[in-house]
Amino acid sequence: MYTYTQLKDFSYQVFIKMGCPEIEAEAASKTLVSADLRGVDSHGVARLSGYVRLWEAKRINPTPDIKIIHETPSTAVVDGDAGLGLVVGPKAMGIAMKKAKEVGTGWVSVKNSNHFGIAGYHSMLALQEDMIGISMTNASPLVAPTWSKERLLGTNPIAVAIPAGKEPDFVADFATTTAANGKLEILQRKNENAPIGWIQDKDGNNSTSPTELKSGGALLPLGSDREHGSHKGYCLGSIVDIFSAVLSGASYGPWVPPFVSFLPVAENMPGEGIGHFFGAMRIDAFQPKEHFKSHMDNWIKRFRSATPVEGQESVLVPGDPERIIEKERITSGFEILKPVENDLKALAEKFEIKF
Amino acid sequence: MYTYTQLKDFSYQVFIKMGCPEIEAEAASKTLVSADLRGVDSHGVARLSGYVRLWEAKRINPTPDIKIIHETPSTAVVDGDAGLGLVVGPKAMGIAMKKAKEVGTGWVSVKNSNHFGIAGYHSMLALQEDMIGISMTNASPLVAPTWSKERLLGTNPIAVAIPAGKEPDFVADFATTTAANGKLEILQRKNENAPIGWIQDKDGNNSTSPTELKSGGALLPLGSDREHGSHKGYCLGSIVDIFSAVLSGASYGPWVPPFVSFLPVAENMPGEGIGHFFGAMRIDAFQPKEHFKSHMDNWIKRFRSATPVEGQESVLVPGDPERIIEKERITSGFEILKPVENDLKALAEKFEIKF
Repeated sequence: MYTYTQLKDFSYQVFIKMGCPEIEAEAASKTLVSADLRGVDSHGVARLSGYVRLWEAKRINPTPDIKIIHETPSTAVVDGDAGLGLVVGPKAMGIAMKKAKEVGTGWVSVKNSNHFGIAGYHSMLALQEDMIGISMTNASPLVAPTWSKERLLGTNPIAVAIPAGKEPDFVADFATTTAANGKLEILQRKNENAPIGWIQDKDGNNSTSPTELKSGGALLPLGSDREHGSHKGYCLGSIVDIFSAVLSGASYGPWVPPFVSFLPVAENMPGEGIGHFFGAMRIDAFQPKEHFKSHMDNWIKRFRSATPVEGQESVLVPGDPERIIEKERITSGFEILKPVENDLKALAEKFEIKF
Repeated sequence: MYTYTQLKDFSYQVFIKMGCPEIEAEAASKTLVSADLRGVDSHGVARLSGYVRLWEAKRINPTPDIKIIHETPSTAVVDGDAGLGLVVGPKAMGIAMKKAKEVGTGWVSVKNSNHFGIAGYHSMLALQEDMIGISMTNASPLVAPTWSKERLLGTNPIAVAIPAGKEPDFVADFATTTAANGKLEILQRKNENAPIGWIQDKDGNNSTSPTELKSGGALLPLGSDREHGSHKGYCLGSIVDIFSAVLSGASYGPWVPPFVSFLPVAENMPGEGIGHFFGAMRIDAFQPKEHFKSHMDNWIKRFRSATPVEGQESVLVPGDPERIIEKERITSGFEILKPVENDLKALAEKFEIKF
């Protein structure tokens, strides 16, 4: 069992050893471990050694000059200077929020960044300022568009955080695929098969093998197949890709650089690094805050009190599952999988820090 | 066979008879018939008699005072004054575009409106100004959230239009359910069953009956079931509902007024009418236009040239199917289903206009 503080402090030490300034190591560790806290284990400390390897491969710059390269009163394009997405993300979200304070909303497209952890974390930064937060990112190509054999999109998540009043805030955070890649990793470890509708093989046929991606297979867009609306999941993944990368000048589609350092980056990339997109909308740019929040409470209570189907205790509101896990993990701590624990121990040894 | 102009002119005459000012009858007929043109037959002239009945029930105001009731430089809340959504929509989108001209982006939430036709039409208005257009609307409750027996959401569509250069523009326009309600209507007419994953019965069990909604059943969110990501479709539908109605002061969730005049509106509605949400983002608020468009062309060409799975000719880009139908229908005209034709003939007789 580990505590949140233990994991955050350890991650902080690792980022310091990578050469990050203290304030950025703090931001990066907070962003990273928010994933473990919310139960998205695939995006938390499990990825720490991956960031280190990308830094060793000189694909991550620990002292980036993150700056606005173009802006209007409500928009900005940010160059992440190959920094950690964990640092670039909160900075860019901060710019969106500053613009929202000034003109009602702020919209920031980011190029030349890296993996930014969980999308939900960034969107939730807006909540403390009574804003709606939106966050999305493209990612390395693992997903086949409807009718394609080729992988052209990442799991391209979207997060939207909306402040409520007395009820917990509404937080949606989801990959635009039927299942996120982290779920395949879990199945691989358990030696179990995936349901039909998550994966196709290299020829585009249904597959249940969680290792299919290693043989040229692909994840499927939300909807699974054309008859069940996979073209809509493909639309969503495409919109995330275009907002994050074509608007900013990052690489897009099949050219998005991979997270793993042992895979080479594509030749003739059309842009720089991976891309993110952030939005912030001030509630009181639309409605008096308290009025809005009381209606959000009403919305949430109505949905949560809907008659559930047999076998389910209640209808959930987006954000419920993660909040329940977070509460539990804050009080009781975390289990870490053995391979991840070994990874962290190896990092501790490498950098001569305590774990 | 009918031509676009015939149907638009006929619709115009009907809206004039309802008492719409000429300029608004023109806008309404253009918006309405764009659905037929793009192959979304369920949202075009097939709905004309429905609008008339709502007007007769005094739920549609033919001479609305559509106005901004709150605004910031990048946002506005618009009161549609119970007008036709077909008229309110383009006006509100125009406000979003005006704000985008001034500060880079514009975001407009609308209350007290009615059915606005196809979401895609409104988003595409932004293309002519080299902007990205976003359009969404809530709708009467036909959809059960994941694990709910009750219908709490509409099919709540999202449309995003993104300008390209030499390639046709990217236009995504989709309901946030596995299948739109119009598809069930088609199955009913053909006396065919729906695939598993589109519909549940009143107890939340799988159903293949396209008439299941009449017995308390529901459409399913995109993803079909929890294992295939229906909670993500539920998130999307919820976001559309909140942006369109909680931000604007329209009715939301199960309280959204029905389109059909024979169903009563809910008691104690939390807001006024149905709600829409529109966004416009100026391309050059992020990138030089020509630079962006050349990358969009590159994106589109790469996706369209992906290796297709066996049995498919090519991978489509969002907007392709509708554009192909539009081209065909502009040149060769439309077939109209007999019941719809009869409906239009009855309207012609009622209002003493030619059809």
